[in-house]
Amino acid sequence: MQAALETPGLLSLAAGFTDNATLPVTEVGAAFARLAEAGNGAEFLQYGTNAGRPGLRAALAERVLAQDGAAPDRDAIAERAAQTFVTNGSQQALYLAIQTLCEPGDIVLVDRPSYFVFLELLGGLGVEARSLPVGEEGRLDRAGLSALLRGLRAAGGRERLKAVYFVSWFSNPSGRTLDGAEKRLLAEVLRAEDCVVPVIEDAAYRELGYDPASASAQPGVLGDPAWAGFPRLYTSTLTKPFATGLKVGYGMCDAPAWRAAMLHVKGHHDFGTSNFAQALLEQALAGGDYGRQLGVLRRAYREKRDALHAALEAGGLAALGWRWRVPDGGLYLWLEGPAGLDAGGDSAFCQACLREGVLYVPGELCHGDAPARNTVRLSFGVLAPDALAEAGARFCRAARAHAGTVA
Amino acid sequence: MQAALETPGLLSLAAGFTDNATLPVTEVGAAFARLAEAGNGAEFLQYGTNAGRPGLRAALAERVLAQDGAAPDRDAIAERAAQTFVTNGSQQALYLAIQTLCEPGDIVLVDRPSYFVFLELLGGLGVEARSLPVGEEGRLDRAGLSALLRGLRAAGGRERLKAVYFVSWFSNPSGRTLDGAEKRLLAEVLRAEDCVVPVIEDAAYRELGYDPASASAQPGVLGDPAWAGFPRLYTSTLTKPFATGLKVGYGMCDAPAWRAAMLHVKGHHDFGTSNFAQALLEQALAGGDYGRQLGVLRRAYREKRDALHAALEAGGLAALGWRWRVPDGGLYLWLEGPAGLDAGGDSAFCQACLREGVLYVPGELCHGDAPARNTVRLSFGVLAPDALAEAGARFCRAARAHAGTVA
Repeated sequence: MQAALETPGLLSLAAGFTDNATLPVTEVGAAFARLAEAGNGAEFLQYGTNAGRPGLRAALAERVLAQDGAAPDRDAIAERAAQTFVTNGSQQALYLAIQTLCEPGDIVLVDRPSYFVFLELLGGLGVEARSLPVGEEGRLDRAGLSALLRGLRAAGGRERLKAVYFVSWFSNPSGRTLDGAEKRLLAEVLRAEDCVVPVIEDAAYRELGYDPASASAQPGVLGDPAWAGFPRLYTSTLTKPFATGLKVGYGMCDAPAWRAAMLHVKGHHDFGTSNFAQALLEQALAGGDYGRQLGVLRRAYREKRDALHAALEAGGLAALGWRWRVPDGGLYLWLEGPAGLDAGGDSAFCQACLREGVLYVPGELCHGDAPARNTVRLSFGVLAPDALAEAGARFCRAARAHAGTVA
Repeated sequence: MQAALETPGLLSLAAGFTDNATLPVTEVGAAFARLAEAGNGAEFLQYGTNAGRPGLRAALAERVLAQDGAAPDRDAIAERAAQTFVTNGSQQALYLAIQTLCEPGDIVLVDRPSYFVFLELLGGLGVEARSLPVGEEGRLDRAGLSALLRGLRAAGGRERLKAVYFVSWFSNPSGRTLDGAEKRLLAEVLRAEDCVVPVIEDAAYRELGYDPASASAQPGVLGDPAWAGFPRLYTSTLTKPFATGLKVGYGMCDAPAWRAAMLHVKGHHDFGTSNFAQALLEQALAGGDYGRQLGVLRRAYREKRDALHAALEAGGLAALGWRWRVPDGGLYLWLEGPAGLDAGGDSAFCQACLREGVLYVPGELCHGDAPARNTVRLSFGVLAPDALAEAGARFCRAARAHAGTVA
């Protein structure tokens, strides 16, 4: 993959990178200038604390409480800030979560499809992923979930079930948002089946809805009484919505023992995320540049989504039996190819795409189990709209050529 | 400890933070300005790669090869750069090393005394630490080491011995430098006892010798033929010598499978250290600001060492039966109290220090086994010289008061 990425002329719809054209050089410079002028010395270049900058944690607490529709009063902010810890991207929060919850052989329920780096993380720690059953439109299947949990119990696996994980806004890879009703249904069935296990909500794309209102259209698990009693971890990132090079994410966890365990391990991983990157983001949030940059990104990604979607439509992909949803946020189109198609990493279809000069992420990597090998993730994060149009056209040509060979 | 650190008036000789007065605000600003003007877009604000920036890795390779006295020709640099990976401080490199080498119950040999966060990391992963035996002046004891390794084998523990770890320049906590002969002796005995296990050399303070020549007075394990055949990991940091808020360290490993395993896990931890922090350091190295800042720090830390040492002398600590070495680099004085003294975290002596308003790190935390409870680590990293003089005086008053109570 690395080698392929470096091939000249190849267009990558695989990389999960973000838009280069909109990276906020001026805004980072302004944040630095404000820090340098703030008159409290150079503490922003000193080590910080293991849990992260208090000011940043309070700002995050206030922000997420507001998105959840909670009154962000002083006590609520202080309580939430105390539950918040800053990490090296939200990825580290996910890693700490699993490292502290699971032993090899344990089981974690994951959305279907799911974030493939999380699935790899599970595999690396010897943890087994089981997909939450879904039905029409990818919506959670209540009967299927009940059956899964009962089957797990019957097979003696209930004690090994340690957590449930999902990306709830503009999912990587599906672009789907779990709506409030669906999340409540999940909580309800878990509770009914006596599976009140830790829940991990990955909200990495919550702020990347093209309509800003989508971030507060439903609460996160920490703000939803349906999840009361579950140990809850909410993870998100500040850098996908601003500048990925800063690599700052966070977790918010309402279960004291779990949170303490995660912080204990973080103390061993690195005893604190770059204080400088945190200080820059604290400034950018306070000064409004973070919000303005979000506006820029939302417009840029919508335009890029449109460019890729239009290219797939113009290329006649639907007539070849492919289906895809047009997401209202995030960085990804999730495509389902014709039944029986193999779009895996070593497939003839993948080779056809490479011959046309376009790369994608095989959807098979994005499944906790029973991979749907006819699925594909296309990212429109990196390429400019005209390159996306070309990449989309190449993908369609490859699909057409491949359909010709198997017809 | 956190609460005590926040008490007004308390002077901390415990914190491992660095000097605030010399943090390089101007230099970081200049590095940013050069990046912003470089004309290759804003890639420095984009995600980087898992292993780190190629330019930074090459610069590190060249730097360490030169310190090791090797000819830094193009091939050697390329080979070493390929062995190099950038981490969230050198701490993450140490974590990855142990996470990939050890299972709970395994054994790692550590220097005596040793870096206490590393010892905590071992404990967190269920790994047992065994101290390398030392004799006069803290030098490695050949007969003791042979006996330890034979005893381990006799007890059936040889298979659980997975690594040897030491801080080789201006150790945290002892301030000692292992000289070349001592390191070679270690390699020789390990080899003679059929214990060619992975070696982890922590060179975090290599560049913080007050005499710049000390960094190249002896090679690191990667540059010393005595260690040929051992899987070798050399770790160090760019941020203690420049700005700790950037939190960028690195590992260099010549064992391909071990290195691949560490990178695999790093991909799950965070899939790459802040690209922005790396880019700033790459600029600071290339532009000479890193080297200039090192010069500033060396002078500042020497002055601070002198201030603390002088305060301990003036306070009559030696007459109370305390001994300490005056280090030629680093941030720490390592003190040995009178025989029988308990300077542990819950000791009467520690309480006496708190009453006087001074904090230290109990030396008992810095031992892999058989802690010497009469030892103390004093850091002169953070406080200004006048505050160090006062803190040193307080420490001596506490020692005198405590000696009075037990006399």
